[in-house]
Amino acid sequence: MEQKTKINAEDGKQELLITREFDLPLELLFKAYVEPEILEQWMGTKVLKLENKKHGSWQFETTDPQGNKHGFSGVIHEFIDQQRITRTFEMENTSLGAQLEFLEFEKLGDDRSKLNMHIVYRSAAIRDQYLQFGMSRGMDLAHNRLQKVAEKLK
Amino acid sequence: MEQKTKINAEDGKQELLITREFDLPLELLFKAYVEPEILEQWMGTKVLKLENKKHGSWQFETTDPQGNKHGFSGVIHEFIDQQRITRTFEMENTSLGAQLEFLEFEKLGDDRSKLNMHIVYRSAAIRDQYLQFGMSRGMDLAHNRLQKVAEKLK
Repeated sequence: MEQKTKINAEDGKQELLITREFDLPLELLFKAYVEPEILEQWMGTKVLKLENKKHGSWQFETTDPQGNKHGFSGVIHEFIDQQRITRTFEMENTSLGAQLEFLEFEKLGDDRSKLNMHIVYRSAAIRDQYLQFGMSRGMDLAHNRLQKVAEKLK
Repeated sequence: MEQKTKINAEDGKQELLITREFDLPLELLFKAYVEPEILEQWMGTKVLKLENKKHGSWQFETTDPQGNKHGFSGVIHEFIDQQRITRTFEMENTSLGAQLEFLEFEKLGDDRSKLNMHIVYRSAAIRDQYLQFGMSRGMDLAHNRLQKVAEKLK
């Protein structure tokens, strides 16, 4: 089945360009990224901290089927309501290090919106590791859940 | 005169690798990056905020010869004393956006230390704009001042 979340990974580059269109008003798409109770449902993570503001920070945690906990965290460089979040992201206790993420939220219509995500990695090799982990399919599935969770809130 | 701060800018890449060796103990080099009163002297900026900790943030301001103020700010993703600072950096009120900086501080001897800086930009074009602004020469001069200011504190 074709993925709705499109990932553009140019060979040898240390970045990814990701887009996804949703059948959701912009307001609701943005909410799904900033309200912990919605985010936890579609990301499947526990939100330990989420300071939705410039110079804030965030921390999530997942538990795998074996019961091991995995942490993710970062800082929020910029936060513009319903427009843009620029943040860092790191999978804790790995050697992958920090990456910089530019999330842009775009209104396409009253009930249509688009996420444009640009991720910049420390190296092309680290980016490729994320892709090998199945990041593309994982993100598509997560966004499918986001659509389902958020459309109930319309 | 040959620059002591070396910048490696590979064609078409969205990153810079910068190294500089100092005739300073590691402790003093690190201090020059985290103590506002030292930093202000060699960077020529006013330190409005500098939270030296993981998930902290920072804000500097310079005044140009015409009296115009220029702001620089970002968030601190990681902070390990005398080892590493990972932070974002942005020149405010420009279209250059955020960049991600990895600063690593290395001991070479009792009185010798090295800064390894890796900057990752949103695009190669933005990186090249910084280089065209004279960033390479500017950083070399600033590091020369750092050496002079910090060696007085030995």
